Amino acid sequence: MTTPVALNTVWVILTSALVLFMEGGFSLLEAGLVRTKNAVNVTMKIFVDLTFGALVFYVIGLHLLFGRDVAHVIGIGRILVPNGLPLAGFALFEIGFAIATASIISGAVAERMKFSAYILVVAITCGLVYPVSTHWIWGNGGWLGRLGMEDFAGSAAIHTLGGFMALALAHIAGPRKNRFNADGSANVFAPSNIPLASAGAFILWFGWFGFNAGSTLDAHSVQLAAIALNTFLAAAAGGMSAIVVSIFKFGVADPSMTINGSLAGLVAITAGCAYVQPWAAILIGIAAGTLVIWATGWLDKLQVDDPVGAVAVHGVNGLLGTLAVGLLDSRQGLLTTGHVHLFLIQLLGGVVVAIWGLASATGIGMLLKRTVGLRVPEEHEEEGLDIVAHGIPAYNELERFSDATQIVFGKHPDKSVVTTASDVTKPVG
Amino acid sequence: MTTPVALNTVWVILTSALVLFMEGGFSLLEAGLVRTKNAVNVTMKIFVDLTFGALVFYVIGLHLLFGRDVAHVIGIGRILVPNGLPLAGFALFEIGFAIATASIISGAVAERMKFSAYILVVAITCGLVYPVSTHWIWGNGGWLGRLGMEDFAGSAAIHTLGGFMALALAHIAGPRKNRFNADGSANVFAPSNIPLASAGAFILWFGWFGFNAGSTLDAHSVQLAAIALNTFLAAAAGGMSAIVVSIFKFGVADPSMTINGSLAGLVAITAGCAYVQPWAAILIGIAAGTLVIWATGWLDKLQVDDPVGAVAVHGVNGLLGTLAVGLLDSRQGLLTTGHVHLFLIQLLGGVVVAIWGLASATGIGMLLKRTVGLRVPEEHEEEGLDIVAHGIPAYNELERFSDATQIVFGKHPDKSVVTTASDVTKPVG
Amino acid sequence: MTTPVALNTVWVILTSALVLFMEGGFSLLEAGLVRTKNAVNVTMKIFVDLTFGALVFYVIGLHLLFGRDVAHVIGIGRILVPNGLPLAGFALFEIGFAIATASIISGAVAERMKFSAYILVVAITCGLVYPVSTHWIWGNGGWLGRLGMEDFAGSAAIHTLGGFMALALAHIAGPRKNRFNADGSANVFAPSNIPLASAGAFILWFGWFGFNAGSTLDAHSVQLAAIALNTFLAAAAGGMSAIVVSIFKFGVADPSMTINGSLAGLVAITAGCAYVQPWAAILIGIAAGTLVIWATGWLDKLQVDDPVGAVAVHGVNGLLGTLAVGLLDSRQGLLTTGHVHLFLIQLLGGVVVAIWGLASATGIGMLLKRTVGLRVPEEHEEEGLDIVAHGIPAYNELERFSDATQIVFGKHPDKSVVTTASDVTKPVG
Repeated sequence: MTTPVALNTVWVILTSALVLFMEGGFSLLEAGLVRTKNAVNVTMKIFVDLTFGALVFYVIGLHLLFGRDVAHVIGIGRILVPNGLPLAGFALFEIGFAIATASIISGAVAERMKFSAYILVVAITCGLVYPVSTHWIWGNGGWLGRLGMEDFAGSAAIHTLGGFMALALAHIAGPRKNRFNADGSANVFAPSNIPLASAGAFILWFGWFGFNAGSTLDAHSVQLAAIALNTFLAAAAGGMSAIVVSIFKFGVADPSMTINGSLAGLVAITAGCAYVQPWAAILIGIAAGTLVIWATGWLDKLQVDDPVGAVAVHGVNGLLGTLAVGLLDSRQGLLTTGHVHLFLIQLLGGVVVAIWGLASATGIGMLLKRTVGLRVPEEHEEEGLDIVAHGIPAYNELERFSDATQIVFGKHPDKSVVTTASDVTKPVG
Repeated sequence: MTTPVALNTVWVILTSALVLFMEGGFSLLEAGLVRTKNAVNVTMKIFVDLTFGALVFYVIGLHLLFGRDVAHVIGIGRILVPNGLPLAGFALFEIGFAIATASIISGAVAERMKFSAYILVVAITCGLVYPVSTHWIWGNGGWLGRLGMEDFAGSAAIHTLGGFMALALAHIAGPRKNRFNADGSANVFAPSNIPLASAGAFILWFGWFGFNAGSTLDAHSVQLAAIALNTFLAAAAGGMSAIVVSIFKFGVADPSMTINGSLAGLVAITAGCAYVQPWAAILIGIAAGTLVIWATGWLDKLQVDDPVGAVAVHGVNGLLGTLAVGLLDSRQGLLTTGHVHLFLIQLLGGVVVAIWGLASATGIGMLLKRTVGLRVPEEHEEEGLDIVAHGIPAYNELERFSDATQIVFGKHPDKSVVTTASDVTKPVG
Repeated sequence: MTTPVALNTVWVILTSALVLFMEGGFSLLEAGLVRTKNAVNVTMKIFVDLTFGALVFYVIGLHLLFGRDVAHVIGIGRILVPNGLPLAGFALFEIGFAIATASIISGAVAERMKFSAYILVVAITCGLVYPVSTHWIWGNGGWLGRLGMEDFAGSAAIHTLGGFMALALAHIAGPRKNRFNADGSANVFAPSNIPLASAGAFILWFGWFGFNAGSTLDAHSVQLAAIALNTFLAAAAGGMSAIVVSIFKFGVADPSMTINGSLAGLVAITAGCAYVQPWAAILIGIAAGTLVIWATGWLDKLQVDDPVGAVAVHGVNGLLGTLAVGLLDSRQGLLTTGHVHLFLIQLLGGVVVAIWGLASATGIGMLLKRTVGLRVPEEHEEEGLDIVAHGIPAYNELERFSDATQIVFGKHPDKSVVTTASDVTKPVG
């Protein structure tokens, strides 16, 4: 290859690796934020995204998204690759985006959705829901893109969509047991592992450089450095405002809110990273870090149970980010230039994607309820999905407190297989 | 430097960093999969790979591998660097490969090998065993390479070798206490920390983009993007098939098997990532994710105790990957073109490397048994190697359950140094 | 952009991402090395570095460092960007360096500094202290740089400065309760989570390739590969010597010392990575890994309490690295060429930066003592800063041992909010 093409290829491969590594970030974030008894289950859901989700998108979704346009609504057939990139590199990068959408959902339905139901949610999301609405924005000839909607790396396409699908599915699945009281007040279940959740946030932050700057799909873009800087500044500002607001609101610098504040900043700058000035990126981050705390409170009031805050982070701030471009775009923003045109398009695009997410996820939820079932039985929820669906708890450190503990898993995992060292006689398979 | 050379240099440095970061992946994977009382010990073994292993390879092994060829069997002297790369960059990349081989072994002998013996295993592996057989495949003039063996990034050179060395040493070291019963049945010891092990798997998956795509050693290679995509698809397919098979076989989606299924897919595509089509990569992944579960069962039947599944993942699937190129190579595969030539060479190469691994590791094991000793005494195994060899347990969180617990380590670490806050009076050093 | 400029931009963005990911490394390292009851608090301090620290540096510090030179002492106004890089990329890279300095401090004052005081320490460090002394070395026209001081990626500028600031603040804050006995002997508090601390070390090691090789700020530099190799070799040698020395000194291969030995090797090669031969990098690493163990002992004798060893790793070995260039520089080192000139300049520079760090941090400490207060009350220290300052413990896994445990945080977090499942009735907000 010529050096310019080689550089673009290297760029797309390395940023693809960063985006795909974000799945590790989602995994640690969610395993750390849910209760211990479901930490394996959320981890396994990320593996579902990376396996079932990725393969379904590669085989089907990619064509619906980037195939030849039909009626500005859907793609079909041969994939059109931008910038002379190799198809394989472009496909790899886009897989990372599709499964990120699925991973957003995984957190919101944690601790009570059936594992088999989740596999179907992921397959339908990556194979149909995500490719369709994203074709509208990024596809060759999609109607929102033609209107001039600006969504550089997907505040709307990925985060609003994933967040509102998460909202619908969390609502349909219903809250975890004891999460809300009869008088409408809410209980908060403590995250099981804050250092692990933070590690997940740092990996996500790191991977986001690939997510946003990689979305140039062109290493020669003059915007590349500005995108990376804006991405970082918004995350920093989001974390900062969440620390400040949580101190005033809760009396303590709250770790979950700080994590989610940084992530909210990242989500909100994703649409505009290539279109706004650094000061605007900081402003967007500050708004996102504040909004995520209020949104978490609103969802509690609505009795929607989202164990990791995915709706507040991705849904609400995906919408914020989509609108923020309309306000702060350097060339056509409402606040920066006085033109209202772009803002209205962004509003339309954001609302359309949110409704599409709500509607499609409601359809999926209803379908699942009538087929494989959406929610685990109450006794499984109480026991925790780690033992029920995976035959093993997340942490097996009991040996330090009593005798060495060993677990034998078999065809019908139940509590009786958890045995102490003096009692390990059960043979395997 | 000219821009083409600079791009190649940047490529080799960044992919080297990814490959070396895989050591962190091995560390978390193994710390998560062993029992808590040996989590520090396996972590420290990875540090041995990164320190002793890397330096021995840099000083000695690198020359045996890439020096001037002698009789098609070994290299000697001045290193021949491909593609006009700087020697320093090439050396760094190759260090990552050598110590990965050692890290494969570390898991299989976990929980009972002496720390001093492990240091010697690593030094001999990186200084002699790995460079010799890898010279046959990748060295300038090595006999397997001259025959036309295809092993792009080392399914045979690294994974088959490491996996079969691991098999021999795990066999010689013998199983952990209580691992097998008198009637021949097996007990499974629960992994200590599934989220940590998963984090390790995600890091390995991330680093593997450097491992495979970086093996072009040339950013201008037209194969680069296809290699990265194939790598991902095989991992996704491996994880997917492991989830499906484990549900049918065990009744649950088993996390260890899912992790190892993804890794098996990565191992198996490593030889062929540059030579097969994407559909073939998916096929190879599916086979690998299935095979790793059966292989784990076979090893149990053979009463070989491999705490992390390194033999099943790297040994068995390294061989699978080596043979798969012979079957599915786009230009000369048996199934794709009907030619049997390449397949026979791959078979020869895979078997030769496996035998070399078994034989050399058997020699090393025998040597160690007669000198420093291979296995720790039974009472050390029961106590756990963390306290015995490193003076400290992996997790010191007792303070939450009783009084604050503090540990004083000193010249002769034993249980008595674990004290509570009210009893901390023992001075250090 | 032209391809050469694009390659430089890609290089600076990707290495910036690596450097910023090091914050995740600091977070895990420190969370793993402190006691469990303060693991959230140190994690939150890293978020302070990434948010407050980064924004203050971007808005103020960057100009003081790289603005137009005034009297060889400070910069002001418009930033001068090297190598035709985009300002945004250069700014992003430099943010990573500034906040690394703050993160070095965070560990040394862990477990007893007030959270509000720490925010001020970070703001003053990133906004004033770091930019001023670093202008002397790297600024356009800084007096130490003009003298010919060689500090390629900041053994002095970042590590000596951060380490000696840490020393002063740890001394002023005073040791943790029960850390030293009346007879002058020391107690060691066990690290809470060795696998987590190791994961942090691996991330730091990985990120250091960006830290050192990225400091070329030019992908076309012929030194690039040599820098990366030297960086790795010094880390490997540091870890190796720490393993060997700890076995001889303590009777066990000590994990904390191994981790800190590798990091000390990285710190010590940071000044000279572009100026020394690989054998010299190994030598520097061996010295660093040994020195860090002795330095840890000296600090204990001086009754300076540094929970993570930041002073020994960054302060002492930053100085070692600064001097080592004077000894081992290929072209003008004292030992390699017999010329003493460079060594004297390095000695001057290292001592000046150390004194500047001690003096400024002493000033900051005194200021804080008289205003917001530097240290938490004794009862807060006993309870742990996680509950006091953040309303939540790091690990909430009790449910496995008793009833499911859930925590409700509110305006006034205290022990009573920790409730069991049967008692969750307290509403939020």
